[in-house]
Amino acid sequence: MDERLKKQLTFVLEIDKEKNIFRQTHLSGHGRNENDAEHAWHMAIMAYLLREYANESVDIAKVMLMCLIHDIVEIEAGDTYAYDAESLKTQKAREDAAKEKLYALLPEDQKEEFMSLFDEFEAYETAEAKFAHAMDNLQPLLLNHSNDGGDWREHQVSAAQVYGRQSKTRLGSETLFHVIDGILQEHIHRGNLRK
Amino acid sequence: MDERLKKQLTFVLEIDKEKNIFRQTHLSGHGRNENDAEHAWHMAIMAYLLREYANESVDIAKVMLMCLIHDIVEIEAGDTYAYDAESLKTQKAREDAAKEKLYALLPEDQKEEFMSLFDEFEAYETAEAKFAHAMDNLQPLLLNHSNDGGDWREHQVSAAQVYGRQSKTRLGSETLFHVIDGILQEHIHRGNLRK
Repeated sequence: MDERLKKQLTFVLEIDKEKNIFRQTHLSGHGRNENDAEHAWHMAIMAYLLREYANESVDIAKVMLMCLIHDIVEIEAGDTYAYDAESLKTQKAREDAAKEKLYALLPEDQKEEFMSLFDEFEAYETAEAKFAHAMDNLQPLLLNHSNDGGDWREHQVSAAQVYGRQSKTRLGSETLFHVIDGILQEHIHRGNLRK
Repeated sequence: MDERLKKQLTFVLEIDKEKNIFRQTHLSGHGRNENDAEHAWHMAIMAYLLREYANESVDIAKVMLMCLIHDIVEIEAGDTYAYDAESLKTQKAREDAAKEKLYALLPEDQKEEFMSLFDEFEAYETAEAKFAHAMDNLQPLLLNHSNDGGDWREHQVSAAQVYGRQSKTRLGSETLFHVIDGILQEHIHRGNLRK
């Protein structure tokens, strides 16, 4: 087998580990914790299905790929809960180191491409990054909503914290932010989110 | 919320159940059984990374989407193990019924689009379907290879059975079939596949 294909298959096997990185979100039906690979799969399909609601026209293949790979760094860096202030402080440094290590397994051109795609996602500037982030925010919210807001109650999350994160969903999709706003108001009313 | 978006979000929540459909394949590192959502996520990234090895030029966004959705029917129809002759007999009827039921949750245009994409995958005729199937075959083989062929040993699978399935990988990628052939020869030699 030539060196290029060997590197590609080594990377393919390495990312299998993403299936063991568990998140704070629970699957619908009050299921177990979700893992990163499942979350990414769900986001990519959502991006395709809901692309008509993006504020700006997007290259949907790029958005889907961004969704699929955005959490690969967590194989090394671990999952950082969106409302864990301490872990958030070190998140960037941990993920940057992980990015270098993991993508170095790929042939140079693909390493550059994937690192650049990840950086674009993180920078939150392009239409594709904004819409991919909207999926990253909407997907766990829908699961948590279906589970009566249990994840928020468990972590005693406040409405201000969730709005802080979800306000950025608005950069990707005004329409979807409107849906999210309705859901959040319901959970504030039901006492699942601290005022 | 308008009717169209409501239907789309209902479908999004429904497919969450794919994360509970477990396969015979085990994760690398002699891990637990893999589920369909993880398998589809892995296939879609592999398709993108390995697209240079497709026999024919492919629309990679279409291949990725095909990979992502190809097992949604299993939410209703259950997973059918590739080497379970009895289940294979009823697979098409079970999956066709499931397809109608699940995709009916979507707005009409997206229902048609997703059903047609699934049918295209199943028909094994277009360049995209052949390459997506190559991923469907290669992905579990790589995991099983990394686990010393444990899945084949557990089910006493024969070399003829695996070659029967993997020979179709060749339709999508001669190069990747060559890799698979090398791996299979190794496992026959080691006694992990019955002769």
